[in-house]
Amino acid sequence: MPSTSLSFASRDAHRAWLAAQARLPAGFRCGATRFAFTPFEVAKPARMTVTVIALDQPTDAFAAMFTRNAFPGAPIIVGRKRLAAPRLGAVVVNNKISNVCAPGGVETAERICTEAGKKLGIASDEVLPSSTGVIGWRLPEDAITANLPAAVAALQAESILPAAEGIVTTDLYPKIRRADLAGGSIVGIAKGAGMIEPNLATMLVYLLTDLDVGRDDLRAALTAAVDGSFNCMSIDSDTSTSDTVALLSSRRVPCPDLAAFSQALARVCADLAEDVARNGEGVHHVIRAAVTGAPDRDCARAIGKSVVNSPLFQCAVCGNDPNVGRLVCAIGKEVGRNRPGLDLSRLRLTLGGRTIFADGAFRLDPSAEGALVAHLKGAELYASGPAKDGVFTPPIDFPPHERAVEIGIDLGIGNAMGTVIGTDRSHEYISENADYRS
Amino acid sequence: MPSTSLSFASRDAHRAWLAAQARLPAGFRCGATRFAFTPFEVAKPARMTVTVIALDQPTDAFAAMFTRNAFPGAPIIVGRKRLAAPRLGAVVVNNKISNVCAPGGVETAERICTEAGKKLGIASDEVLPSSTGVIGWRLPEDAITANLPAAVAALQAESILPAAEGIVTTDLYPKIRRADLAGGSIVGIAKGAGMIEPNLATMLVYLLTDLDVGRDDLRAALTAAVDGSFNCMSIDSDTSTSDTVALLSSRRVPCPDLAAFSQALARVCADLAEDVARNGEGVHHVIRAAVTGAPDRDCARAIGKSVVNSPLFQCAVCGNDPNVGRLVCAIGKEVGRNRPGLDLSRLRLTLGGRTIFADGAFRLDPSAEGALVAHLKGAELYASGPAKDGVFTPPIDFPPHERAVEIGIDLGIGNAMGTVIGTDRSHEYISENADYRS
Repeated sequence: MPSTSLSFASRDAHRAWLAAQARLPAGFRCGATRFAFTPFEVAKPARMTVTVIALDQPTDAFAAMFTRNAFPGAPIIVGRKRLAAPRLGAVVVNNKISNVCAPGGVETAERICTEAGKKLGIASDEVLPSSTGVIGWRLPEDAITANLPAAVAALQAESILPAAEGIVTTDLYPKIRRADLAGGSIVGIAKGAGMIEPNLATMLVYLLTDLDVGRDDLRAALTAAVDGSFNCMSIDSDTSTSDTVALLSSRRVPCPDLAAFSQALARVCADLAEDVARNGEGVHHVIRAAVTGAPDRDCARAIGKSVVNSPLFQCAVCGNDPNVGRLVCAIGKEVGRNRPGLDLSRLRLTLGGRTIFADGAFRLDPSAEGALVAHLKGAELYASGPAKDGVFTPPIDFPPHERAVEIGIDLGIGNAMGTVIGTDRSHEYISENADYRS
Repeated sequence: MPSTSLSFASRDAHRAWLAAQARLPAGFRCGATRFAFTPFEVAKPARMTVTVIALDQPTDAFAAMFTRNAFPGAPIIVGRKRLAAPRLGAVVVNNKISNVCAPGGVETAERICTEAGKKLGIASDEVLPSSTGVIGWRLPEDAITANLPAAVAALQAESILPAAEGIVTTDLYPKIRRADLAGGSIVGIAKGAGMIEPNLATMLVYLLTDLDVGRDDLRAALTAAVDGSFNCMSIDSDTSTSDTVALLSSRRVPCPDLAAFSQALARVCADLAEDVARNGEGVHHVIRAAVTGAPDRDCARAIGKSVVNSPLFQCAVCGNDPNVGRLVCAIGKEVGRNRPGLDLSRLRLTLGGRTIFADGAFRLDPSAEGALVAHLKGAELYASGPAKDGVFTPPIDFPPHERAVEIGIDLGIGNAMGTVIGTDRSHEYISENADYRS
């Protein structure tokens, strides 16, 4: 369940809420700069933003998790090395090109770290690089290093909003969540709208805190928080090559309660994960599949993922069509493939709290059908329609939110459970990913 | 590679080709009838077709394979029992409702077999039932049994076309393929357009032959043919609850060469599989991912499936956008998840025969980009555009065909290979599955 139930009526109200979320913890600054460049591969002008997040003093308290995709981007390869470094002092992020499988990508990422380090007065290996965007293209290294001074000059200690806005690609809105506790705070930002089925970590997420938690505790807390949030969501089943979650502490504020810190961190991650899902490319409905009574947690999550990743079920939800047969198909597909022999005779399904399946058969009639349609319509973010040119573009601009399609899947076998967040599939997703060239 | 390279300029030419494919083998008849009914669950009138395929004499030479989905339809449950029966004399198929997880579904299927058996003068357990359509709804048993006499009265020994047309749901065209050998023939028909990632068997496929091959040889040949055809394709990764492939021999013509029979059967299955993919809901491009140099066949197929099932790559292909980074992402997703540690350093990728990736990096520039766009456009079946009401409907009406997006994935590790057939993802798929209620 989301921790907030606000629903903004206007872009202004959303901006005001974002500004309040965005206050930086003590000891951090951020800045960003935007510039034009021409990708080598297509020779067509484009625009890129470089974002810098810097600590006032490099810290030994940092954690990071990266994608399990077998073709990690160059920044991931460099970032894994950074985990062993004594301190981290800054993160440098560019959008538009992800620096994955591009010739000389690792060397390019390292040189950008060196340049950024010079400007910030810290060592190369105290800079964590991050990139997101098109896979396979080369970073415009000269343009980036030429514009680094402007990003550094823009550093300020008030708001993380410039960073939240700087790291996005097709995102509809900046994603910022915070938790305040014990006189300090945890503030997180996320980039992500497509190529989202995180595996171990996710898209780009930066979590900053001034609470003094040491490196080992920080890494354990991050692993736990990611496991129950970003690892339990999928927009399109495509695990990115650039997934990164980094957590940095400036150690400015004593942390009296590690459990409370971990809980707050988990909450921030869960909120950001839902923000990312709701901002998924072309999303009209967020789907929350809560699996209970499972023999183990992995089984619960795998069944939840199979449901939210079923293209046919996604389309049905998009059309407010309670074609719940596709729900059973998705469960049976996963069990048949990966858990053959699992006893499904006690399966119970609910949609919007209403039991629709029990004792091996559906419980459907015209009145149930009407109630299910009403639940789907109630969870719809906006109605779809093509613009005059035939292209679909989403009109919405507002988290937080609590509307979601609520699916209950009780296997009736064991005590394990898992909740997975997913999305529907719409014309807007196709327009985003097919109608336009990247 | 497809065995035909025809491309029909008109619906008439396609119909003439279908008529030639459709000649029934000796010893078979088929007939179909269409009628109105009202589903209990939505109380909205609909139309259904019941199709009967009958042997002149029940045969002991039959084979069938069924879905691995853990929620098999009632006809699958009954069909698995039929495999142990001494003889089969007929198949009765209805579309519109698949009889899956519907109350009393198995008993309904059995009663329909009994009624059909009475009309045909054969035993209940000599009738194989099949159903396709909405999951979870009840079959209109009374309407079906009331219309069985009309379907039986329509039986004729000339053409399988009425059956090929009778079993479809959202299909654009009837799918019929044949092989003639040794004075006999194998003729197959298929239904399928969505919920297609067969697992062991597929959608609805009926293969009839007059060649005299005994039960054991028939079953072995079917297993081999299905393995390399229907099990190597995916339209939307959704393994159906109703997948069925049945093969019946009337044993009228001596079969001098079992190997030639098996080869011809495999060819018919491969052609039908490609027909089904090309008829996939909203398909603009068929994608053929040929994986070579793999350590084993399962690995080759899993990587091919990951590519053709990647929503982002599907969308890029739909838009004739050579966003080949998404291809690498899909390979890395599969390897990272299921084959961590697999050495990908010798990976070579081709698109349309052109090398685009080698030595760990892409080989892209504006001229390569232009050639890749040309290959994608050359493989496009039709250009997309919404109708005046904003709904997308496909205009095409013609297999056979050989246009496909040709992807080569050489892992450079071992000697195993596998080719997977898939499709792009378009507005038409969304319109088919979201804009309209089933």
